[in-house]
Amino acid sequence: MIDARIGLDAMGGDNAPRETVRGAVDAVGRDPEIEVHLVGEERSVWAEIEAAGGARDRIRVIHASQVVGCSDAPTDAIRKLDSSIRRGAELVQSRAVDGLVAAGNTGAAVAAATVVIGRLPGVQRPGIAVTLPTAKGHSVMCDAGANIHCKPLHLYHYGIMAAQYARKILGKEHPTVGLLNVGSEEGKGTGLVQKTAALFASASSDLNYAGNIEGNDVFTGQCDVIVCEGFVGNVVLKTAEGLYEVVAARLKELAQGVAAASGEERATSISDLLKRFKANMDWAEYGGAPLLGLNGLVLISHGRSDARAIRNAILQAARSHRTQVLKAMTSDLAASGTRSLA
Amino acid sequence: MIDARIGLDAMGGDNAPRETVRGAVDAVGRDPEIEVHLVGEERSVWAEIEAAGGARDRIRVIHASQVVGCSDAPTDAIRKLDSSIRRGAELVQSRAVDGLVAAGNTGAAVAAATVVIGRLPGVQRPGIAVTLPTAKGHSVMCDAGANIHCKPLHLYHYGIMAAQYARKILGKEHPTVGLLNVGSEEGKGTGLVQKTAALFASASSDLNYAGNIEGNDVFTGQCDVIVCEGFVGNVVLKTAEGLYEVVAARLKELAQGVAAASGEERATSISDLLKRFKANMDWAEYGGAPLLGLNGLVLISHGRSDARAIRNAILQAARSHRTQVLKAMTSDLAASGTRSLA
Repeated sequence: MIDARIGLDAMGGDNAPRETVRGAVDAVGRDPEIEVHLVGEERSVWAEIEAAGGARDRIRVIHASQVVGCSDAPTDAIRKLDSSIRRGAELVQSRAVDGLVAAGNTGAAVAAATVVIGRLPGVQRPGIAVTLPTAKGHSVMCDAGANIHCKPLHLYHYGIMAAQYARKILGKEHPTVGLLNVGSEEGKGTGLVQKTAALFASASSDLNYAGNIEGNDVFTGQCDVIVCEGFVGNVVLKTAEGLYEVVAARLKELAQGVAAASGEERATSISDLLKRFKANMDWAEYGGAPLLGLNGLVLISHGRSDARAIRNAILQAARSHRTQVLKAMTSDLAASGTRSLA
Repeated sequence: MIDARIGLDAMGGDNAPRETVRGAVDAVGRDPEIEVHLVGEERSVWAEIEAAGGARDRIRVIHASQVVGCSDAPTDAIRKLDSSIRRGAELVQSRAVDGLVAAGNTGAAVAAATVVIGRLPGVQRPGIAVTLPTAKGHSVMCDAGANIHCKPLHLYHYGIMAAQYARKILGKEHPTVGLLNVGSEEGKGTGLVQKTAALFASASSDLNYAGNIEGNDVFTGQCDVIVCEGFVGNVVLKTAEGLYEVVAARLKELAQGVAAASGEERATSISDLLKRFKANMDWAEYGGAPLLGLNGLVLISHGRSDARAIRNAILQAARSHRTQVLKAMTSDLAASGTRSLA
């Protein structure tokens, strides 16, 4: 029985439509209860489905004649009425699908989804929640770049919604919520951060607010949820990605030197070490980042996504739908008593 | 001949005065032309000098009866008239020393230095310039947290001053200056960032402005100088430090597993790899971070500094003094034609 129908912008991302289609074929092969609706230029999409082989009884193609490219303005996603990202958002809005995965132009996806799908009651600005690998497992950081003009209420809602996401999707029973700041003591930071801290401090006891968190603790896993404005979240996420790549490359270079100076057997041990290291920190494992605050499920994937990243995002979208996480967020937002502030 | 007299807040940092004094003793041992002026409670400082052994003919002690602790407010550095950080700043102001190294409460050091030493002509807010290890060598990021309420002119001046620092200290002949943003295209980002970009675009051709830079490229070394507001720089720096530590710990754990499953000789190769990795990314190697915009040389060191980090900061302060970097910055600021905007 099909219990999750997931839309996919087949034309989004650096490697579309080849990798998006492969990811979709792989996803339906792995989860017998999902159906994937590929949105894009139908001839190219069908050609890729042929090329990918595999089962296709739970794959549908919805034609869209236009594409919003990576260098297009976010507003192009609204203006281009027959673009794959806009058509995908319409499928969510009409409930033809239970969730959408998009790996292209993030600004365009946010714009199309916000205009077409609309927001949850009380929410003013959607935020992107990314899952980060930490020393203790995983944490969620919101916002990773959807909203660079944040108000305290926006950040407060990110905390409420991301906590529910951490509960339902990451399985944290009572997730702690930290506010990213330049110091751990109370009263630190900009006016935005200080006013947000006051909102969190006055929140109902259901929210496990842990106060300020500094950059050092983003990857230690000290908090399950990390709240920050989009500019900061975007820069932090991309800096961490870049640093990780530099470290991995340097490590490989050093390993080649050590291996060359050792025997063949030693080289094997080092190569084994590097493989384990890579698997542990691999971003593509964590699939897509949900756009929290929309009245529908939309997951954003990395622009560089390959088939595996797309597959993981589709499977994660299906899991998110099954947990009814949006319903739980709506109820938490209502209980937060901030609708009157909006 | 003594050509650089460097002051050191002997009481600042988690491991003071033991590690600060050891760092000072080590520094005078390595550089025969510097003299270190230790500022702090004289009996404790002399006791540590005794304990550290080594030469002491170029070490002086300047008594200060008070200490500004890590949890004290920045304003305490101004109020506590006989605190080691304030007395150290006074030595710079009166030109009794050519530079000051401080490893304690950063906010207190910034406040004391700004009030006591004053700023370079035209500069409104000092910024902390940190040296980051990158895939290509080193880059400088400014501001790393001195100024969390930035205006475009502050950021513009950080670019001018940090470029001169990169030239004189890191040996980059014509350093590129990038503006940290959420996208590389023109017109991206907040109002602050957009207005700053316009100032940079109108700058004289002496400044090698390279436009926007995203987080991914902070550690690739794409730009020699990275300009950002203090809130963002602080979070980026600390996140990178935290991520590096998590990665190093995970790597060690994995290596133990691989080594245990291999022979003793293979374990030696892996341990060799880890040592090389650690040496390559070690933050303490890079000494102190200059507080740019002051009318005097002040370097801030990590609160966790050990003797080696303090020694490196002292040696770097001496090198900075010898290059006459402040004079060059003053001249660049005057040439930038922005004094009328201030």
